[in-house]
Formats: sequence, C-alpha cells, structure tokens
Amino acid sequence: MERQYENIIIGIDPGTNVMGYALLGINGKTPELIVMGVLQLSRMENHYMRLRHIYERVSGVIEEYLPDEMAIEAPFYGKNVQSMLKLGRAQGVAMVAALNREIPITEYEPRKIKMAITGNGAASKEQVAMMLQRILNIDESRMPALLDATDALAAALCHFYERSKPFTGKGAKSWKAFIAQHPDRVKKN
Amino acid sequence: MERQYENIIIGIDPGTNVMGYALLGINGKTPELIVMGVLQLSRMENHYMRLRHIYERVSGVIEEYLPDEMAIEAPFYGKNVQSMLKLGRAQGVAMVAALNREIPITEYEPRKIKMAITGNGAASKEQVAMMLQRILNIDESRMPALLDATDALAAALCHFYERSKPFTGKGAKSWKAFIAQHPDRVKKN
Repeated sequence: MERQYENIIIGIDPGTNVMGYALLGINGKTPELIVMGVLQLSRMENHYMRLRHIYERVSGVIEEYLPDEMAIEAPFYGKNVQSMLKLGRAQGVAMVAALNREIPITEYEPRKIKMAITGNGAASKEQVAMMLQRILNIDESRMPALLDATDALAAALCHFYERSKPFTGKGAKSWKAFIAQHPDRVKKN
Repeated sequence: MERQYENIIIGIDPGTNVMGYALLGINGKTPELIVMGVLQLSRMENHYMRLRHIYERVSGVIEEYLPDEMAIEAPFYGKNVQSMLKLGRAQGVAMVAALNREIPITEYEPRKIKMAITGNGAASKEQVAMMLQRILNIDESRMPALLDATDALAAALCHFYERSKPFTGKGAKSWKAFIAQHPDRVKKN
C-alpha cells in the first residue's frame, strides 16, 4: 500500500470481550480516519485464544498500515482486581505487538480522552462517536455498530491533539527539546 | 540441542520487577531441573521496555528449550487494582510468547503451588526452595539467589504433579481420554 500520510496513529480500546482499533492518518495539521473496527473476542473458546487473537490481529493491522505511534485507552481504576488482571493481560498483549515493532505507546485515561474529544470528561460513548463523526467528517456509512471502534479512534485523536499542543515552556527537558527543534530561535552572541 | 526429555514444562513466576522462569524435564515419572533463572526488570528504563524484554526473553527460552507446556503462577487476588493491572500486563506478555508457539498454558494459584510442593499452602519462599532442592536433588551451586526462580520451578513441578494424578473417573470427557490412552482396558465383546 502506498503511504498517503505523513504520520499514522493507531488507537486501541482494549477489552476482554471486544477490542476496538482505529487508524488515524495525519497530513500537516489535518487528521483523517483511515479505518476502524473491532475484534470480537466473546465468541472465542477461552481466555488464551482471546489473547492470541489480540496479538495476531493487532500485529496484522500494524503490518498493514505501519503506524508510527500507538495511543491506548487505559483506565487507572477498575471494578475489581480480577477484571483489572484480565484487562491488563489484554492491554499487555496489544502493547507488545506494538513494542515488538519499535512503536512508542502513550496511555490515556478514559476521562482525558472524552475531555479532549467532547470537552466533557463524563461524556457518553455516543457523544464521543457523534463528535468524532463531526470533527473528522466521517460518512454515516462508515460509522461502526460497536462503539469500541469509535473509542479507539477517540484515543488516537486525543493523542494527535496532545502532540499538537503548543509549547508551554515547562521544565528544562522541554526547553532542551524546544531548542533542538528550533535552533534558529536561540540567540547567538 | 539434542532433546533429552520426553516432556518439558516451562514454569513462570511473573512479576513487574523480577520474573522467574524454570525448565523442568520429565522422563517417565522422573522430573529433573534443566535450568532456572530470573529476568531483572527493575533496571529497565520504563514499563514498556520491561514488557518487551519479557516477551523477548520468554520467547528466547522457549525457542532454546522447546517446552511442551507452560505452568504459570497467577494470584487471584492482589493488593490493589493498579498492581493487578501491571501484573496482568506482564502475565499476558509471557503468555502470548507461549501461545504464539501453540504451547498450552495452565495457571496455578500461589497457595496451590505451595501446597503441592511443601504440603503447606502458606509456606515461605525459602521453604518452597528447600523442598525443591530436596525433591529434585539440586546441587547447592545451582540454587539461585533470587527466589523468583525457585517459585517458577515450583509452578512447573506443581503442574507435573497435577498431570500425573491418578485417573479419578470424573465426567465423560475423562473417560474418553482414559479409553484413548488405555485401549487395552476396554472389554471386547
């Protein structure tokens, strides 16, 4: 496939029943939906089949679209330790599919993603999907039945926004990075 | 490497700071230590490096020793959801290294492993290590400094014991398996 984008972000919404994924292409300042979908895991025979399926499918999507970065929705709190353990396994497997290909990962809390997309950290999945459709000008026919796909797209778009934030000058590390990126702004004596 | 064992079990004690692994070789009814060791993860730069390292090292050990089965220590309860999420990631990554090579996985609770090795579900790591040394006749020079390695070996040996349990005749599935394994025991008319 000919690469049409300067930069591609893969968004992942991991789950043990359904996992959402989305590819967001960037040209200049313009993000565009490439593709989104879900992995249906609940029909799988057992937990191990699910983990293997996650690894294979996420690896497959990565090899097909060659994303530069991964953004992943990762809650910091959960209902109980058992569900967090299973969620952790699903996350770990999706992550290592990216890490094995040297793709850097950024995690975002669900609240942060909702805030970035809708301006409301407590927005519903439907509100997030509606805003994504509007922002990215997605045709109705491409909107998914399962909102795990739009949640994954929201993670990718949130990451694009975070990366694009103007330089705030906080801390020495940022200054160093800023100077490295803008050597012309350093005053010469 | 020439394969000297009828069957090899890889035991894993997953952790986010140290991960233990052990290879147990079986000939007939005799289990024998092949090798055990730990992955030191705490020196790694970040959580993602650790996950990648786990995948690479567990994959490497599997490719070197070609185990037939994986036994993994997996607690059902944890201190808090954050630690369980991180533990889940480490577990998932070790598991998928096995699943990608069609190696079946069995999970054992820490209590169950301790019970199988020492007869006491609340035994200390030191007691487990001492019993392993005695049961498997391990030379003192081969005993590890970090007990994550012996915990992994304990998981492997626990799995060997569980598999070797006498047939109990529970359920149709077991009967079928029993008949398949012992066709001579079926009465001919």
